Amino acid sequence: MSTNHYDTYREDAAGRANVEDSPELVAYYRELEQLKTGALWTVANKIEPWQPRSDSVPVLWRYRDLREHVLRSVSLVTPEKAGRRVIYLDNPGRREVAAAVGWLYSGLQVMHPGERAGAHAHSSSALRFIMEGSGAYTIVDGHKMTLGVNDFVLTPNGTWHEHGVEDDGLPCIWQDGLDIPLVNALEAGFYAVHPDLQQAVGYPVDDSPGIWGAAGLRPQHAGWTRRYSPLFKYTWEATYAALQRYAGAQAHDSFDGALMHYTNPIDGGHVMATIGASMQMLPPGFVGSAHRHTGSFLYQVAKGRGHSVINGQRFDWQERDIFCVPSWAWHEHANASGSEDAVLFSFNDLPVMEKLGLYREEALADNGGHQPVLPLVSG
Amino acid sequence: MSTNHYDTYREDAAGRANVEDSPELVAYYRELEQLKTGALWTVANKIEPWQPRSDSVPVLWRYRDLREHVLRSVSLVTPEKAGRRVIYLDNPGRREVAAAVGWLYSGLQVMHPGERAGAHAHSSSALRFIMEGSGAYTIVDGHKMTLGVNDFVLTPNGTWHEHGVEDDGLPCIWQDGLDIPLVNALEAGFYAVHPDLQQAVGYPVDDSPGIWGAAGLRPQHAGWTRRYSPLFKYTWEATYAALQRYAGAQAHDSFDGALMHYTNPIDGGHVMATIGASMQMLPPGFVGSAHRHTGSFLYQVAKGRGHSVINGQRFDWQERDIFCVPSWAWHEHANASGSEDAVLFSFNDLPVMEKLGLYREEALADNGGHQPVLPLVSG
Amino acid sequence: MSTNHYDTYREDAAGRANVEDSPELVAYYRELEQLKTGALWTVANKIEPWQPRSDSVPVLWRYRDLREHVLRSVSLVTPEKAGRRVIYLDNPGRREVAAAVGWLYSGLQVMHPGERAGAHAHSSSALRFIMEGSGAYTIVDGHKMTLGVNDFVLTPNGTWHEHGVEDDGLPCIWQDGLDIPLVNALEAGFYAVHPDLQQAVGYPVDDSPGIWGAAGLRPQHAGWTRRYSPLFKYTWEATYAALQRYAGAQAHDSFDGALMHYTNPIDGGHVMATIGASMQMLPPGFVGSAHRHTGSFLYQVAKGRGHSVINGQRFDWQERDIFCVPSWAWHEHANASGSEDAVLFSFNDLPVMEKLGLYREEALADNGGHQPVLPLVSG
Amino acid sequence: MSTNHYDTYREDAAGRANVEDSPELVAYYRELEQLKTGALWTVANKIEPWQPRSDSVPVLWRYRDLREHVLRSVSLVTPEKAGRRVIYLDNPGRREVAAAVGWLYSGLQVMHPGERAGAHAHSSSALRFIMEGSGAYTIVDGHKMTLGVNDFVLTPNGTWHEHGVEDDGLPCIWQDGLDIPLVNALEAGFYAVHPDLQQAVGYPVDDSPGIWGAAGLRPQHAGWTRRYSPLFKYTWEATYAALQRYAGAQAHDSFDGALMHYTNPIDGGHVMATIGASMQMLPPGFVGSAHRHTGSFLYQVAKGRGHSVINGQRFDWQERDIFCVPSWAWHEHANASGSEDAVLFSFNDLPVMEKLGLYREEALADNGGHQPVLPLVSG
Repeated sequence: MSTNHYDTYREDAAGRANVEDSPELVAYYRELEQLKTGALWTVANKIEPWQPRSDSVPVLWRYRDLREHVLRSVSLVTPEKAGRRVIYLDNPGRREVAAAVGWLYSGLQVMHPGERAGAHAHSSSALRFIMEGSGAYTIVDGHKMTLGVNDFVLTPNGTWHEHGVEDDGLPCIWQDGLDIPLVNALEAGFYAVHPDLQQAVGYPVDDSPGIWGAAGLRPQHAGWTRRYSPLFKYTWEATYAALQRYAGAQAHDSFDGALMHYTNPIDGGHVMATIGASMQMLPPGFVGSAHRHTGSFLYQVAKGRGHSVINGQRFDWQERDIFCVPSWAWHEHANASGSEDAVLFSFNDLPVMEKLGLYREEALADNGGHQPVLPLVSG
Repeated sequence: MSTNHYDTYREDAAGRANVEDSPELVAYYRELEQLKTGALWTVANKIEPWQPRSDSVPVLWRYRDLREHVLRSVSLVTPEKAGRRVIYLDNPGRREVAAAVGWLYSGLQVMHPGERAGAHAHSSSALRFIMEGSGAYTIVDGHKMTLGVNDFVLTPNGTWHEHGVEDDGLPCIWQDGLDIPLVNALEAGFYAVHPDLQQAVGYPVDDSPGIWGAAGLRPQHAGWTRRYSPLFKYTWEATYAALQRYAGAQAHDSFDGALMHYTNPIDGGHVMATIGASMQMLPPGFVGSAHRHTGSFLYQVAKGRGHSVINGQRFDWQERDIFCVPSWAWHEHANASGSEDAVLFSFNDLPVMEKLGLYREEALADNGGHQPVLPLVSG
Repeated sequence: MSTNHYDTYREDAAGRANVEDSPELVAYYRELEQLKTGALWTVANKIEPWQPRSDSVPVLWRYRDLREHVLRSVSLVTPEKAGRRVIYLDNPGRREVAAAVGWLYSGLQVMHPGERAGAHAHSSSALRFIMEGSGAYTIVDGHKMTLGVNDFVLTPNGTWHEHGVEDDGLPCIWQDGLDIPLVNALEAGFYAVHPDLQQAVGYPVDDSPGIWGAAGLRPQHAGWTRRYSPLFKYTWEATYAALQRYAGAQAHDSFDGALMHYTNPIDGGHVMATIGASMQMLPPGFVGSAHRHTGSFLYQVAKGRGHSVINGQRFDWQERDIFCVPSWAWHEHANASGSEDAVLFSFNDLPVMEKLGLYREEALADNGGHQPVLPLVSG
Repeated sequence: MSTNHYDTYREDAAGRANVEDSPELVAYYRELEQLKTGALWTVANKIEPWQPRSDSVPVLWRYRDLREHVLRSVSLVTPEKAGRRVIYLDNPGRREVAAAVGWLYSGLQVMHPGERAGAHAHSSSALRFIMEGSGAYTIVDGHKMTLGVNDFVLTPNGTWHEHGVEDDGLPCIWQDGLDIPLVNALEAGFYAVHPDLQQAVGYPVDDSPGIWGAAGLRPQHAGWTRRYSPLFKYTWEATYAALQRYAGAQAHDSFDGALMHYTNPIDGGHVMATIGASMQMLPPGFVGSAHRHTGSFLYQVAKGRGHSVINGQRFDWQERDIFCVPSWAWHEHANASGSEDAVLFSFNDLPVMEKLGLYREEALADNGGHQPVLPLVSG
């Protein structure tokens, strides 16, 4: 803190630092700085807040706003020059680390039929959620997966992976989700380009869901020791059917309707070491209560329309829109339709919160469990 | 060993006991008996065999032989008097403990439409595999599951459970598999009759597969701490489809074709604490190689026909037949058809072998991996 | 059950089998026997008892009775002929399987200075507890451990192991504890004699406790993937000191005083896959309450004297005596001294009970928590 | 990136972004900014570095420089006003988050006899390592621990904890280590002051090491479900003795000499959810090789003197000095004495690296495994 004032963070409360600057103290502080040290009481209240303060702000990115810009990138840059044609979501509070929310990155990528991106590997965990088009595929360590709209696919940390669209497909747009900001912050990121730029397909197409995608059954020869799911692809068709069965089998959660987490069939846990993902159904007429919890969340509307109130701001969303909920932000979701369900895909850093013992949640007790909505709505 | 001879187990090999009886020694042995002790060298070679010796013998139980006897029990005893009308499989080497093989019990139970067995609970883990009929159901701790042919259902240890057939169903026969002999041997068996004799259904019908039966998805609110799977029912339809996908996704195992283990979705492990279960497809024309391993196995033919060679004996089987493979017995399976697949259901004590560090396996190296078949075939 | 009577196990209680023999039924039963089957209701009440029935009986083996017999074996048989000179404890209810209690084997082994047994390996887990002498040592997979009185040492399943007494030692007697009966019952026992009959010492003497025997510290390079503790030796000195600290740090358990389980430092669990072991201190004047639980226990008195009441029988014990508590037997312990503590070593099959979900316990509610003692006391 | 130049991070390599600014593109980028988005190729090379880049710089803090400043704080501020009198280590590259290295905080705290800090709790995990004085103690959730020089004590996340010095003690200085910067970055920090400002001692003094501090033994009644070690205190005496035994039991590690990790006796893992700690002995004459790995480390010299070369800079250290090794920095340690051992305490974020799948290490292959040392040495 090279500044003239060292008593910015004073608080008048028992157990908190409350030391006023004096010439003698300021001189002392400057000596400490020479020794690459500081006096804790000058920063204690700043670095030990009473509760989490997120740098991220709630944002809704409307697909109708973004789509043309994404498509325009095709004419503006070549894949060879750009690497990948991606428009990333840049949270106003997180521009320094290029995060959509918290330590999570998100971008919309476009690819034309016949195109194929180069294969690479990195320490970041990544996922794709298909938004439009046909003929998309992803190859992970030699396993090729065919992808349709609302399919969810993993490209976990350390794997060689690449994406493409078949010659007879249609232009595809998908959301990329990664923990790039987190891995950079943890100073643990490695990046590599495949020596052949492209990798060979070494297994039957869609073998991963063929081997690992059966409910309540696992292959005789597992032999899997990686820290991420061997099931790389989760189809919309099976996921939506599962949500419907689940919604019929038990009462809805007052916050999230019927929510299922994508899992690693090896151990029933999160799909990757640092990123979790979920799909949730808000039944017709659903109006959820508000709660808040640690962890950062990015939502994409897979089906239907509705709104969410996040820290008092109302965001109206429809299919393909993306919005974020920062850590410890109050949030509640509602389905706008009384006859159709709405379905939200989301990914998050829950595995980090849980493994590090930092998950905490709280329901809103006041006002019938609903936030007062601020008059001005921003998008 | 109250006997006149104490040197029955002598072996002439380095590191093995080889002490001949003498009058002095026999007198000594008798003194030891008075003290409730014995000389280890008189029994060492018996209790430390070079490799496992199973008391069980290979047996094939043909359904065409058993079926009428099972059905006849309906007219011979009432449910009230018999508790359950079950014909159990009595391995000639295990009659003392009423086991079908090793420490596993198996019985064929029959129930008529409108009948419902009393609810009970026990320390044994149990499973049912439906063989014929319609309208069968099982209730486990208030969760009711509807069952069809080749469906597999769990009634884990400690749960209240009962079975019935709907009024509009057909007479049903199923296989019961339990670890009763094991739990008795371990002197840990408790049994209780439900105070109301019948339990209430407390959840939507088939809620267990609705909540837990989705591939790669788990409910938001797991809250499951039991040592067995919360997924109680595994349907034939989904299992057979999964086997077909699996068989297409990777090379067949030379011993077992395409084999999948039923799993607990919570942790990817065995379905219950002491019993594992599997379904395997022998593709058309499949002729498996021989191997042996520790653990006891009971097979039921779910589809097709073929044969197995077990410790040199050939057993020809067809749909609904049941056969056993004792611990450390050589065995190999073959599909009799060149155009249809054959499918084998099996259950076993693999969880016990694995948890206690006792699993071991060996491939037959000689004779091209096939056992010489003994001239006489018994059933 | 080849017998003339099939209705031996009838019970007149709801939910239990209660079928009387009739000529027609007996004929039916005999037909079933021809098919290697039986009617469940003829054996159901036998194989599904209301609570565990142990075949083992409570026994106290007094060291003053056994010691001379153990020593006498030295003159009666050579190590070459006998393999090992061991007097095993033969529970009157378990003579068929040579068990001291339940599925646990125990024997007292004697060895003279300069003797060294041959190295072998087996599927059984084994432990040694030193009773008298000096200069004893054990070698496990090349790791040599020096042993004194009341030291506890593991020779886990699958390890090459052997015992010896240094030339300058004194004759040594120790207790061997193994799960031989269990492994045989599970039909999973393998036995091998070391190809060189003796194994070389490949590491610094006592390296195992040097590397793994520090409280709250583990070596940088663990690299341990076996299912048993890498810490093979637990000294009496450290164990007794730990018990004293523990006894001072919290209230005594009403059943067991201050009891600590020996643990695997890798995961904090039991020392071996099938056998657990404990040391417990009964403080001066301690009179424990009665309880019962599943699992079989064998105790050796490490220090002091007192008595135990087991299923109503009182057994008075002193240093070096051994006694057993069968599964589900009521038991309570008391220290005979008002000034000295008493210390009991024990080993058990708790890992089996726990892993298989079969552990259950119950406190005695009646009579102030104490059993009425039967008039006749047997030893 | 609100800037006039968007092509700062271009790289001319296959698979990397290499797009030159053009008026059309810059216009496009500005449109994207309006939508809270950006073009990935303008930042891709920045956010996906080839290998980790640490913001931290290697620093050595000499105790002889810091000590007087720490002591001076006593006369400058009262505990009531300052909360705690702590001088924190402020890495020049991490001043914004008040970290000593990476996401780890460290401070030197001073307390006089009779003083006692207020009790608080926070989401951060904390540890103390005593540097000088006598009579120090720490209370964690009612468990009081007495502390001497080089003792290591945990105050895990979520616990009520406080520190004090007995009336008859001497002024104490200790190092506080916390993950405050990490928890803040993860937006998951909560802070609470104890309602009574001080907590009562509810257990025998030093009960935690009494119950949990025995090698190879655990208490009968564990009942511990927290995510941190129930053993809160690790004494120097026992740790140093363990290191000596360990050093004698196996070959030294070429990088770290004889290094042991402090562990949670419940599961053998790290002591807390986010922070690991170690003690390592560099034997007399030890000259280590260089390696680098992910994860941030802070060392304190517990005994002896020597030097470390970190990213080519040589740092000479002696007892009580503190230095840091940033993530992926080359480092090697050497003992300056040929007759005395040197001992280094350290704490780190290894649990984070390991749980999130981000740990990686590399040995220096060139130059005989030693870094060329830069001519200028800074402290």
